[in-house]
Amino acid sequence: MNPLVEQLVYVCDMFGTAVFALSGVLVAGRLRMDGFGVMVLAAVTAIGGGTIRDMILGATPVFWVRDPLYIWVVIATAFVGMWAVRLPRRIPWYVLPVADAFGLALFTVIGAQKALAFGTSGLIAVLMGTMTGVAGGVIRDVLAREVPMVLQKEIYATACILGGILYTLSLQAGLDRVAAMLICMVAVFTLRVAAIYWHLSLPTFSLERQHQD
Amino acid sequence: MNPLVEQLVYVCDMFGTAVFALSGVLVAGRLRMDGFGVMVLAAVTAIGGGTIRDMILGATPVFWVRDPLYIWVVIATAFVGMWAVRLPRRIPWYVLPVADAFGLALFTVIGAQKALAFGTSGLIAVLMGTMTGVAGGVIRDVLAREVPMVLQKEIYATACILGGILYTLSLQAGLDRVAAMLICMVAVFTLRVAAIYWHLSLPTFSLERQHQD
Amino acid sequence: MNPLVEQLVYVCDMFGTAVFALSGVLVAGRLRMDGFGVMVLAAVTAIGGGTIRDMILGATPVFWVRDPLYIWVVIATAFVGMWAVRLPRRIPWYVLPVADAFGLALFTVIGAQKALAFGTSGLIAVLMGTMTGVAGGVIRDVLAREVPMVLQKEIYATACILGGILYTLSLQAGLDRVAAMLICMVAVFTLRVAAIYWHLSLPTFSLERQHQD
Repeated sequence: MNPLVEQLVYVCDMFGTAVFALSGVLVAGRLRMDGFGVMVLAAVTAIGGGTIRDMILGATPVFWVRDPLYIWVVIATAFVGMWAVRLPRRIPWYVLPVADAFGLALFTVIGAQKALAFGTSGLIAVLMGTMTGVAGGVIRDVLAREVPMVLQKEIYATACILGGILYTLSLQAGLDRVAAMLICMVAVFTLRVAAIYWHLSLPTFSLERQHQD
Repeated sequence: MNPLVEQLVYVCDMFGTAVFALSGVLVAGRLRMDGFGVMVLAAVTAIGGGTIRDMILGATPVFWVRDPLYIWVVIATAFVGMWAVRLPRRIPWYVLPVADAFGLALFTVIGAQKALAFGTSGLIAVLMGTMTGVAGGVIRDVLAREVPMVLQKEIYATACILGGILYTLSLQAGLDRVAAMLICMVAVFTLRVAAIYWHLSLPTFSLERQHQD
Repeated sequence: MNPLVEQLVYVCDMFGTAVFALSGVLVAGRLRMDGFGVMVLAAVTAIGGGTIRDMILGATPVFWVRDPLYIWVVIATAFVGMWAVRLPRRIPWYVLPVADAFGLALFTVIGAQKALAFGTSGLIAVLMGTMTGVAGGVIRDVLAREVPMVLQKEIYATACILGGILYTLSLQAGLDRVAAMLICMVAVFTLRVAAIYWHLSLPTFSLERQHQD
């Protein structure tokens, strides 16, 4: 890959890390956690998915041990986040979900790429991309004692799965890596933003067949 | 091991994976999860225990990255399961628990075997067998926000522990691997089915000593 | 390191393992778990933090697979603990928290030391020390379906962080390893005992700004 593109991906990766960390800060704030709890929730949300991916692939030490900048970004975001929520709110509500959709798109493609670099099949690459995107949020919700949101509604993980499939298919069709990345990211981002805008969600599956309350 | 036996074990392993995945599907159905949530609960139940085992042993990439057929079995089971629960129920209630007991027996022996192949002591092999059998169900229950059933009642993990001990003792006594496997599996399966049939469970341990309600 | 010091650290490590296991036994008792559940909660509390640390660093097989004495200590503690709680209570309330503070101090320094031995930066060593000290308790609380105590109040993880920072700074300042260990352990232990004695805790962070109930 072009070194300039690589640097751009790296910068975006840090931006995605910060956005995901912020979503952990907000959950911690709802639970009246202390400063350490805020850090932990910010960290698991931002780097939890990639950590599990690396442990499953055997890519150890995991990415943030090799490059501690991820941890500094999480720490900085937690401090800024704790300070910023005390301000009168001025940012429009859709800024955070849209930034999150961008982070999700990037994390998906990075996860799928890392799996393929380890020689996995396309199916596993799609799985690893999805895991990189959503597993951090699942751990965050478990620590916050909630049934993970991503398992219950909204097109969130589905966007990752589709993006991952498009990415591996594009590579198999002979496209170059940057084009495949863009296709994947545009797909995840667009689908996710559309889901937010039109409140799309997957049908839920239930054992009772008669009534839904 | 005889290649025919090895193939038989492989086929049984896939059957056990499907049965465990189905138990994840049923829990997801109680919680009104969407299709992705059903997949996740099916997957963690079926392959979660083996994944943790492989990460602890350092057997990475973990088994299902090397052989994605496990993932295909989980996906197929999730789809069939979601469709099948809509049918009027015709299968007797004991079919699933008995199939589950078979899966538990097989997973225990596979886990213990893999640990021994990594040169661990007998104690660790028993632990790894038990973990392969029960850890997936524990993660499933944590995601479903329940205190893991296996920690509270019924002879479930206990069957794995006894089976694992019998397996390592049989090998140390000089029995060949197939005989040791059969002894272990028969023990786990019988004990588990007996526990279901007679509602056996371990005494629970409580800090209060006077009354039990 | 002096072999005598090394042996002393090993003995203390086993003592810390037992104390942490006992705290798992007590939580299991509140939840009326069976004998297996008690074992699991004792084990995750005592060895969970170190296990995650080793998986993240790639130090696999993890420490207790290499040295199963840790598991024997957990099993023995679980049995002794289940028997001891039935006795009329004679030990003063502060014995357990103080023993726990000692275990926390030791686990922190052992975790930081192992990370540095793997060539990580100081930041990651502080993180790994803290994780070794607190992650086991977090998993215990998740299994017990509680929001992890350590995320909500009291100076617990904070003591680990400060201890880890002192340890890495001492080493960078050229102190020998035993001196750095002692400084770290005294700091963690003192801060933790002071927090227990004066009921110190970090301010909690909340999204609501007006009232606190």
